[in-house]
Amino acid sequence: MTKPKEITELFKEYGKEVDSALRDFFSTLPEYEMYAHLAYFMGFRDEALTPIEGYGGKRFRSGITLMLGDWYGLRAEILPIALSIELFHNFTLIHDDIVDGDTLRRGRPTVWKMWGVPHAINDGDAQALIAYGLIARSTADPKRVLEAYGFLTKQYVRVSEGQFLDFTLTDIPLGDARVTEDAYREMIERKTSDLIIASTGVVGVLANLPTAERIALEGYGRNLGMAYQVCDDVISIWGDVQFTGKRPHNDLYERKKTVPILYAYARLDEADRATLAELYNQKHPLTEEDVAVIISLLEKVGTYEHMRAEVSRYAESAKEAVTSLSITEDQKKILKEVVDVLLPDIKGG
Amino acid sequence: MTKPKEITELFKEYGKEVDSALRDFFSTLPEYEMYAHLAYFMGFRDEALTPIEGYGGKRFRSGITLMLGDWYGLRAEILPIALSIELFHNFTLIHDDIVDGDTLRRGRPTVWKMWGVPHAINDGDAQALIAYGLIARSTADPKRVLEAYGFLTKQYVRVSEGQFLDFTLTDIPLGDARVTEDAYREMIERKTSDLIIASTGVVGVLANLPTAERIALEGYGRNLGMAYQVCDDVISIWGDVQFTGKRPHNDLYERKKTVPILYAYARLDEADRATLAELYNQKHPLTEEDVAVIISLLEKVGTYEHMRAEVSRYAESAKEAVTSLSITEDQKKILKEVVDVLLPDIKGG
Repeated sequence: MTKPKEITELFKEYGKEVDSALRDFFSTLPEYEMYAHLAYFMGFRDEALTPIEGYGGKRFRSGITLMLGDWYGLRAEILPIALSIELFHNFTLIHDDIVDGDTLRRGRPTVWKMWGVPHAINDGDAQALIAYGLIARSTADPKRVLEAYGFLTKQYVRVSEGQFLDFTLTDIPLGDARVTEDAYREMIERKTSDLIIASTGVVGVLANLPTAERIALEGYGRNLGMAYQVCDDVISIWGDVQFTGKRPHNDLYERKKTVPILYAYARLDEADRATLAELYNQKHPLTEEDVAVIISLLEKVGTYEHMRAEVSRYAESAKEAVTSLSITEDQKKILKEVVDVLLPDIKGG
Repeated sequence: MTKPKEITELFKEYGKEVDSALRDFFSTLPEYEMYAHLAYFMGFRDEALTPIEGYGGKRFRSGITLMLGDWYGLRAEILPIALSIELFHNFTLIHDDIVDGDTLRRGRPTVWKMWGVPHAINDGDAQALIAYGLIARSTADPKRVLEAYGFLTKQYVRVSEGQFLDFTLTDIPLGDARVTEDAYREMIERKTSDLIIASTGVVGVLANLPTAERIALEGYGRNLGMAYQVCDDVISIWGDVQFTGKRPHNDLYERKKTVPILYAYARLDEADRATLAELYNQKHPLTEEDVAVIISLLEKVGTYEHMRAEVSRYAESAKEAVTSLSITEDQKKILKEVVDVLLPDIKGG
């Protein structure tokens, strides 16, 4: 998988535009410190809440919305909606960090770590409300904006459903009949893909495209999201430490029941299955030896190769969805390359 | 203050209609247990998540929206918006209960107490998102719905600001120059009044009323909200236990810096001020004797009478705002009586 330089640059441009618009937007908010907490999380202020220069993040989800909106002739009209999507995504991270007890995000203390759980709950709530408010600022036809708002709401609620399903899967031990590959895919479709579907699908709604083209845009987002998440799950088991920034085999130490584990579990013989379940369901932390055993079990049934193939299938489906869009061939090429850019190298290729 | 029977009955009718529509709405949600948690909180399911009959609450905020919408000829169009306001209000309670560590609400275990903090955060988030989604279901002119949505968003965000200001005031000791009556009023205006302004003001937006009439509707909501909150603060110090359902002088034991305390603090002489600050800022729980001292200090500067007068002024302002509305005299009479119905008896009259 390659990362063509021109695509990276193009993305950077749209991402930078979103980032700069977000920065402007934050400067218009009231003086209350809660907004400075949010600006901190977005990368616009430091830990002392002093404004800082430089850009806050790649803004992938909103960048793709702005790019597509631009291509469909709605660059100005879609900008507030792109901002909404980016703020909504970051709202979910503020609350996820509380729930997961994570103290660091992008190398900086999380909101709850900085200002405590009550503030972090309320700050996240405020960010979600602001994200909603931005949709109404679109200057497109009110009928279209209202439809976009109904569409985004549907997608946003599904992200909450995904979080709920994630809690549920985490609470149920490996081996329980409810912990399946399909249940896991349902969860990640909601928790990850549905927001990327929002990013791409909202353009179809705002531009009032024919149903088939809306479905194609959503299909691109769905498959891109699934490819991205499964790829991330594979990397968290087999990825290079230098690349992931996490300890090797992080998801295994945390005993996350991601799809590689569930795939292997369904295919191992009874004895190996029992070993895997025992290691995953035990109370005490896993040792290096435990993790080596788990990896050998995964590889015994070809899990790595299977997962690589699954990622490729999602990536291909995303690229196929692009074919029918009423955009230029060059633009189609860019959308296809975005798929490759987004999927990080696994084990170096 | 009287509670005319016909008003109580009228309210019950609108409140029942909202309640019944909410119940119908919940029955359309997906099967995920998270929605059953929300139905539990709304009073539609018991602790085992079994559906229960009977109505869930007085639905004051949404009842007033539906009543006003009905009078302005938008009964059907405003119903989803009334539901949104009720769900939003309850979303804030789900998160407030986490933040305050409250284990009971309306005599039943709170959501975090039942299913843990992570679920309660996500359940509340989902309820807020659903509340937003309902606005788009209004069948009014899209331009009006979009304007209503912008208006509600503005009000909803202010509720978060109120929560933030509440944390801030709670963290700062009595005696600090930032802890003033005005700071407290700013906080309750956001935390309490702004949602009641949403309830009344949104009717003006959806009905596209002239600016003056919109302002009058908002003014009614604002003053009603302020009267209600200050009245509640007075009751929490001087109210009859049988009436409040809490231990006597509850707010004093919890050392809440409500407006009666701040009023008195600003008017006591230096020695009394020091006594009050010392009692309020100490680490260990207050004794009955401490509370008796505080009450005598409050009464030394006529706090009770002053607060009663403040409540009456807000109540009068709410009633005055009604005068200019383009509704019938009978309807105006009802709105005025609603003010009295909402303000509970203090010390029995």
